[in-house]
Amino acid sequence: MSALEYSPYAAACPSRQLLDRIGDRWSVLTIGTLADGPARYSAIAARVQGVSQKMLTQTLRALERDGLVTRTVFPEIPPHVEYELTDRGRSLREVLKPLEDWATSHMDDVAISRDEYDAR
Amino acid sequence: MSALEYSPYAAACPSRQLLDRIGDRWSVLTIGTLADGPARYSAIAARVQGVSQKMLTQTLRALERDGLVTRTVFPEIPPHVEYELTDRGRSLREVLKPLEDWATSHMDDVAISRDEYDAR
Repeated sequence: MSALEYSPYAAACPSRQLLDRIGDRWSVLTIGTLADGPARYSAIAARVQGVSQKMLTQTLRALERDGLVTRTVFPEIPPHVEYELTDRGRSLREVLKPLEDWATSHMDDVAISRDEYDAR
Repeated sequence: MSALEYSPYAAACPSRQLLDRIGDRWSVLTIGTLADGPARYSAIAARVQGVSQKMLTQTLRALERDGLVTRTVFPEIPPHVEYELTDRGRSLREVLKPLEDWATSHMDDVAISRDEYDAR
């Protein structure tokens, strides 16, 4: 199937599920954290506040499976593991950053709209 | 709170929930549909294949509440309702379109990575 044939508007198209994955809050924030460079699990967990261990593990595994993140084990004593964005992960970050920025820069306006809507 | 103080990396920040909202598949596809111009409910439901009536109604209401979509009732016989992006909704579409395009253009590569991962 060529890229032109994928459409997330079609219920059964796999790109719809991929869109879910990449729009997911934990994916966005994990990729955002790794945009600053490779990081250990504990550093990611500290940056993405409130993420559960189960959810972060699932998210990292899914990102690795999708070829967005690499997981490298350093055979030191004690061994440690680092996660890093792949080139594909970095290309995704380029489109997620504007989304993240949109959310923070429009939060005030959205809050005002919500108050107005609720006061109707 | 100024935009600089919002951070979706903070668990309690409202921008995290907003990020969820705008990254949600139904929001992305509904806004994508309205990018082509104002549309009736039935036209949106036809374009966003597989969306349930309940989910589309919830999505449109949330987008309206966030000031991203307007809902206009035309007092004809029979009356009809049109949904349209606001300026804010159009600014959001500008950052969602690259995300949608990323999903379709990288779907093949992601599928290959998944097969490789699963074959390990």
